[in-house]
Amino acid sequence: MQGEPAVAVLRLGHRPGRDDRMTTHVGLTARALGADRAIIAGATQAAETVRDITDRFGGPFEAEVTDSPKAVLREWDGRIAHLTMYGERVQDVEDEIRATRDDDGDPLLIVVGAEKVSFDVYEAADWNVGVTNQPHSEVAGLAVFLDRLFEGRELDREWQDADQQVVPKATGKKVVDPDE
Amino acid sequence: MQGEPAVAVLRLGHRPGRDDRMTTHVGLTARALGADRAIIAGATQAAETVRDITDRFGGPFEAEVTDSPKAVLREWDGRIAHLTMYGERVQDVEDEIRATRDDDGDPLLIVVGAEKVSFDVYEAADWNVGVTNQPHSEVAGLAVFLDRLFEGRELDREWQDADQQVVPKATGKKVVDPDE
Repeated sequence: MQGEPAVAVLRLGHRPGRDDRMTTHVGLTARALGADRAIIAGATQAAETVRDITDRFGGPFEAEVTDSPKAVLREWDGRIAHLTMYGERVQDVEDEIRATRDDDGDPLLIVVGAEKVSFDVYEAADWNVGVTNQPHSEVAGLAVFLDRLFEGRELDREWQDADQQVVPKATGKKVVDPDE
Repeated sequence: MQGEPAVAVLRLGHRPGRDDRMTTHVGLTARALGADRAIIAGATQAAETVRDITDRFGGPFEAEVTDSPKAVLREWDGRIAHLTMYGERVQDVEDEIRATRDDDGDPLLIVVGAEKVSFDVYEAADWNVGVTNQPHSEVAGLAVFLDRLFEGRELDREWQDADQQVVPKATGKKVVDPDE
């Protein structure tokens, strides 16, 4: 989020067809819950959908595609947290992760896999983090991780250059143009 | 979770093929993050996958299929929270939702849609809740909602009758049989 060390989300292991919607949801979740950027390995359509949503509902948020996620990991100048059901419990490591951001101002790369993730990724990560040690969903894990990382501040974020803005309502739907 | 008023998740609007993995992830997220039951409209395979995971990684957790989500809503004896990007902000209503659970001990039905949700659902709900008013993912919304509802206690849940248990590790993977 603006005014804080940058947070990017790297989506690994996208399998065309099978993972299209999951990968899109990873990108949209990254945007909605306070990350600054999504880097998607080999899923052009998902990145386009996320850019389209950013155009309509506001930013800033970047969505880009990479052909070489290994290079992204190798060249990342900052900390890396890899979300995996085999990792340390999020409730045990989240304070440490937040503290290093406060101390160093280092950007954070959050890595989210699809199916099997190579051991290189576990070794490249400063933290392997389990949002539960149960099998569930990379989208759910990312969402809980971001909400905890930002301690809920991401929910109060203001969006810039939006064409559409949803006005919270107890019942029904209200969408306005924020410039009018 | 055990010892608390029951929480069920109702998944609406499943479109076969297109929504298979999202619906499975809704069910697995419900299980991993403290709900007691998933009720899935018209997605037999997703319910089977969730039951299979429960057999292997523990419970208790129920996954069932319904042909009539409207009947589930109509006959639900408790409160209903419908997650929608058009709803009231989760940070504004979560305390009230938790308070009614403490006061009444009422079970809670959390409703999660796929694409377009009919207006009946908005009217049947005690709360329409937005986990952000941005378009992202029903899986992400459910995950953040559950983590906030249970205030993180769900992460410390113990699982019964598991054949496999992941032991949290800083690097690598460790899976044990908890009975050995």
